[in-house]
Amino acid sequence: MSSQFGHLFRISTFGESHGVGVGVVIDGCPPGFKLDIEAIQNELDRRKPGQSKIVTQRKESDQVEVLSGLSSDGLTLGTPIAMMVRNSDARSRDYDDMKDKYRPSHADFTYDEKYGLRAWEGGGRASARETIGRVAAGAVAKQILKEQFGVQILAWVERVKDISAQINPERVTLELIEANIVRCPDSATAEKMIALIEETRKAGDTVGGVIRGYCTGVPAGWGEPVFDKLEADLAKAMMSLPASKGFTIGSGFEGTYLTGHEHNDPFHADANKVVSTPTNYSGGIQGGITNGMPIDFEVAFKPVATIMHEQDTVNRDRENVKISGKGRHDPCVLPRAVPMVEAMTALVLVDHALRQRALRID
Amino acid sequence: MSSQFGHLFRISTFGESHGVGVGVVIDGCPPGFKLDIEAIQNELDRRKPGQSKIVTQRKESDQVEVLSGLSSDGLTLGTPIAMMVRNSDARSRDYDDMKDKYRPSHADFTYDEKYGLRAWEGGGRASARETIGRVAAGAVAKQILKEQFGVQILAWVERVKDISAQINPERVTLELIEANIVRCPDSATAEKMIALIEETRKAGDTVGGVIRGYCTGVPAGWGEPVFDKLEADLAKAMMSLPASKGFTIGSGFEGTYLTGHEHNDPFHADANKVVSTPTNYSGGIQGGITNGMPIDFEVAFKPVATIMHEQDTVNRDRENVKISGKGRHDPCVLPRAVPMVEAMTALVLVDHALRQRALRID
Amino acid sequence: MSSQFGHLFRISTFGESHGVGVGVVIDGCPPGFKLDIEAIQNELDRRKPGQSKIVTQRKESDQVEVLSGLSSDGLTLGTPIAMMVRNSDARSRDYDDMKDKYRPSHADFTYDEKYGLRAWEGGGRASARETIGRVAAGAVAKQILKEQFGVQILAWVERVKDISAQINPERVTLELIEANIVRCPDSATAEKMIALIEETRKAGDTVGGVIRGYCTGVPAGWGEPVFDKLEADLAKAMMSLPASKGFTIGSGFEGTYLTGHEHNDPFHADANKVVSTPTNYSGGIQGGITNGMPIDFEVAFKPVATIMHEQDTVNRDRENVKISGKGRHDPCVLPRAVPMVEAMTALVLVDHALRQRALRID
Amino acid sequence: MSSQFGHLFRISTFGESHGVGVGVVIDGCPPGFKLDIEAIQNELDRRKPGQSKIVTQRKESDQVEVLSGLSSDGLTLGTPIAMMVRNSDARSRDYDDMKDKYRPSHADFTYDEKYGLRAWEGGGRASARETIGRVAAGAVAKQILKEQFGVQILAWVERVKDISAQINPERVTLELIEANIVRCPDSATAEKMIALIEETRKAGDTVGGVIRGYCTGVPAGWGEPVFDKLEADLAKAMMSLPASKGFTIGSGFEGTYLTGHEHNDPFHADANKVVSTPTNYSGGIQGGITNGMPIDFEVAFKPVATIMHEQDTVNRDRENVKISGKGRHDPCVLPRAVPMVEAMTALVLVDHALRQRALRID
Repeated sequence: MSSQFGHLFRISTFGESHGVGVGVVIDGCPPGFKLDIEAIQNELDRRKPGQSKIVTQRKESDQVEVLSGLSSDGLTLGTPIAMMVRNSDARSRDYDDMKDKYRPSHADFTYDEKYGLRAWEGGGRASARETIGRVAAGAVAKQILKEQFGVQILAWVERVKDISAQINPERVTLELIEANIVRCPDSATAEKMIALIEETRKAGDTVGGVIRGYCTGVPAGWGEPVFDKLEADLAKAMMSLPASKGFTIGSGFEGTYLTGHEHNDPFHADANKVVSTPTNYSGGIQGGITNGMPIDFEVAFKPVATIMHEQDTVNRDRENVKISGKGRHDPCVLPRAVPMVEAMTALVLVDHALRQRALRID
Repeated sequence: MSSQFGHLFRISTFGESHGVGVGVVIDGCPPGFKLDIEAIQNELDRRKPGQSKIVTQRKESDQVEVLSGLSSDGLTLGTPIAMMVRNSDARSRDYDDMKDKYRPSHADFTYDEKYGLRAWEGGGRASARETIGRVAAGAVAKQILKEQFGVQILAWVERVKDISAQINPERVTLELIEANIVRCPDSATAEKMIALIEETRKAGDTVGGVIRGYCTGVPAGWGEPVFDKLEADLAKAMMSLPASKGFTIGSGFEGTYLTGHEHNDPFHADANKVVSTPTNYSGGIQGGITNGMPIDFEVAFKPVATIMHEQDTVNRDRENVKISGKGRHDPCVLPRAVPMVEAMTALVLVDHALRQRALRID
Repeated sequence: MSSQFGHLFRISTFGESHGVGVGVVIDGCPPGFKLDIEAIQNELDRRKPGQSKIVTQRKESDQVEVLSGLSSDGLTLGTPIAMMVRNSDARSRDYDDMKDKYRPSHADFTYDEKYGLRAWEGGGRASARETIGRVAAGAVAKQILKEQFGVQILAWVERVKDISAQINPERVTLELIEANIVRCPDSATAEKMIALIEETRKAGDTVGGVIRGYCTGVPAGWGEPVFDKLEADLAKAMMSLPASKGFTIGSGFEGTYLTGHEHNDPFHADANKVVSTPTNYSGGIQGGITNGMPIDFEVAFKPVATIMHEQDTVNRDRENVKISGKGRHDPCVLPRAVPMVEAMTALVLVDHALRQRALRID
Repeated sequence: MSSQFGHLFRISTFGESHGVGVGVVIDGCPPGFKLDIEAIQNELDRRKPGQSKIVTQRKESDQVEVLSGLSSDGLTLGTPIAMMVRNSDARSRDYDDMKDKYRPSHADFTYDEKYGLRAWEGGGRASARETIGRVAAGAVAKQILKEQFGVQILAWVERVKDISAQINPERVTLELIEANIVRCPDSATAEKMIALIEETRKAGDTVGGVIRGYCTGVPAGWGEPVFDKLEADLAKAMMSLPASKGFTIGSGFEGTYLTGHEHNDPFHADANKVVSTPTNYSGGIQGGITNGMPIDFEVAFKPVATIMHEQDTVNRDRENVKISGKGRHDPCVLPRAVPMVEAMTALVLVDHALRQRALRID
């Protein structure tokens, strides 16, 4: 069950980097709406390699094929929606050195320890290609959330290494995010980020940073108390993405420097009895349940582990050896991680939307 | 299913702050070992109110009763272990003001939005008493992990507001943690933390901070790729605790200021072919799976929302009103959160231990 | 997870025959309705030992205690509802012989093989007392189904050994079922059944038979295609009851003697465009989903395994030995199994009701 | 989650009769064994249409494509194994009449009631093609069970309408089952069954019957008490197959005519301390857990609903209309259901094998 996510809107992903392909099955998609396959492809294009000079140059068209779940009119049937993308530009020879050596801070060693073997070509299931199924399913979830619940999900690059953007989240639009290749809606800072990434890539090194997620239009009452708190499910979703190292909701670690008096979000009702909070340290979630304010979170992504430097490591015989990075890799994962963060957010939210619907018998 | 956690070692918790009691049912506990009930009680004592001057003064003995799952010799039967603690010192009158008013940054408003009603006395299910079941079950998990797998789980207070301890995690012991009431193994810093908490309490205010979790003896190969990555499950576990706002594994947000070259953990094999990494930016987990190094993570806890100041809020009729904190509350949740963090860690690890056992057919 | 049942309305049961008690936690109960605790107790009374001369004479009051999940007004909170019944009349000495010997056709041998130990007193978790949690939770489910969906669930004894009743299910009421101690709504046949059971008991032997379940008011559209077909979930539910050996829906095994032409249920629409089928070989379910006709099924229960005769068996040392039945046991499980069948039916239906509610986004 | 089955060895199936194709994703397959793809294809060939004169003449090659989960050496990686079969001979025009009319005793009406729409071409997801994913996954499970646990699973046709075979299950082999096209190991009776099916087909009618499942080599201790009893999971598995109407384990409904004295299976230990029971009324399972005896069960399959006669029904406007069967259909589902029964049995057993492995910490 390790490749499954969600309860009522449950996805099962499959596929390795250098196998036939990668894909996803969605079980529990509501019936009767027109699936926008172009929108799915668009999200995959935001994720795909080779899209700009600051990402890996592996060439993959990543064309999605919908295998099931649609009527002849393109409506969702309520039955499983299977989607697949075939691998094409898989250069196994780039990875020969990886067959017996463990790349530092990759999953080579741990997969071998867990399973006794691994698909060493391109990282196998630990490759970022695994996220294709997530992004495709997330695109379906986004469509439901937007059309049926009025929810908008955005994510953007807030910081690359020590270059930090100053962003008013209420002003961010998808267009602003997509206006540059690093996906930072602050264009001036984006230029600096791009320059840093290019420079880093030339040095054979990599950088990480922070992505911010922001969801508006989420009604109060989604999420569950106790274990399935919405922020807990978001944390799991984000920490399940490759290279993520941290998650915060609302005030996060910074909020721990405040007192309760400073940190609390007072409620206020307007003339229409709409309740909101002037501050949003809570990040839109209180006691695990949405309060109607924007959901606001951040995710830390480490610098990519594949670098073009010689490094110390061990081989399968547990001898100390040297390894050098090869293949085509991202100098910074963040631009491509933006659609992944959005997808995982959508998967969490749509699941909780359906759970809440089941709960209330009016 | 919102009150359930785990797959193979699955717990179901129940109970409200001011109802009959709170408890837990463990389904999937391995059979045949002698359950140390005193150890369970000891963990509950570390969690219970009234244990020191810097926690809430609510008086609860929190005596655990084991209802099922043991043979007449006290051995686990492999059947569900149900445990309960009855509530005793429940002063509902302290909460009269809460019946119709929503406490800022609490779960009152969101529960009402979700369910259409709530147990307003003492916060009901959103009370920290909900964690009793977690701690009791975690104590069982700890016992299995220690005796059958050699795993040790520790957590401690690393920072209170801006008072930060400098701690070498390899030197920390349970004794050092328990040597002071704030549960910080750096005794000099602990004194400052205690003073700050007392001062804050006198001012009717509250503080938050950071707890660090640290697990040794975990073999390589635990955890799952993709969605159930070990750090993802830990993140969910921690973010499901009341008042938590952030989670990091290994280098966390700090690591994003490094380059890949600086951040990678090179592997090294010693003469006995034991593999380790001189650095541990990965926090003991790579690709979602343990690498045999210590699991090292941090959790941010916000300042407690209940303060003794008048605050703006709304009532159930969505009128703007004032509310003042009453009742007995923690000025700082961290000392009591330490056993909760340990418990949730144990629940995550024991589940993955059993999952790994099921996987490998040797 | 072996002691859990249901997805959205999920129950976790616990407890052994001779431990502290038995109980259940319901996770996912809809909020805001007044729980009728008397109705729960009434179902437990229908299940309890000692209720008549044809059941076991063990004396248990089986008083339910609701531990959580209710507001101070008795409304469901949407949080887990925990319920417990304490054991009282537990005579372990009756079971001394069972400690080392395996009772034929009981679960003694298999529990030992599975777990390496067992609670030999009274059968431990394999005792019929385990069903108390099911019946209590089922009583909650029944209430939801009746009040919020208009569903009525009945079950009755259709046959005891070779004494078979001729019953028109549309005429059966709860009153008719409860009008005699064997729970067969055909009073003349019921008398014969009672006489047979008494005679059998005097001979130290036991009998089995068939219970029929019948649900009216179930709307079309409940149930799922593929694996979670409604009849599949009902089959699992019934076959999970102690002593059950077979399950049929609609025409069952008898229908296999017909041709398709004879067996098909033609649809018919009345003047109000209400669709029904004049025949109901389908038993109310087609393709796993209800069609609005009554759900109609049967369950076979074997003769109780505990008999008052000396039998061949083996002991824990795997020596061939003799064993004689002791303790107080049912000569026929069917009268007490009626509320169990109803309870499991209710648990299946309420879960599918909530699943269907989640599915349709109108 | 309705298209998922299993806990530790969990499959997700997808696909409609007239869409791109059908398939399955297996999550939780143990790593490191050589997957025999030919064996998978062989099982699909046993299931496929057009294999003999007594099944539907739809022409499908049903060639399986393995999309993921294997190393370049063909070893299982422990990651999801996705398999797909493309549809080819899909004649939608045969189904024009079905677009607006509901076929009696099919799932047309109920799908529309549930989802608000359906894939009317060929029955969509309710088509028997849905079972391709089950059979492919079951073939993987069979391989694990055989190679790693020594378990053999067989199923055969025991009865067609009123033609019943007399079979000693201990003598049945796969070769005997496959020796004739009806899959009844009693060759003389098989001939009569084939003649009846042909005669029925010519009359435009259909027949049903009974399949028996029989598993040897299953160790004692598999299965779970309470809800996930092995017979309960088998019952669900079988009742989830298209056209199944009943399930019995061991003595089933027949056993209810016996007394406990007659019905009990006494234990006996041989000189090597191997425990067995001379009789097997229990069907190899006691208290939900295997006792080491053969697992022995039966499944009733109704006569196929599609007949070549005009029948009464209603259309989507709920008008009373006539419908006539068209398309290519099975006159009797049993020969092709044999591999389905085996597959579902294998899926249940492999899941419980892994669960038992996880449970025991030795």
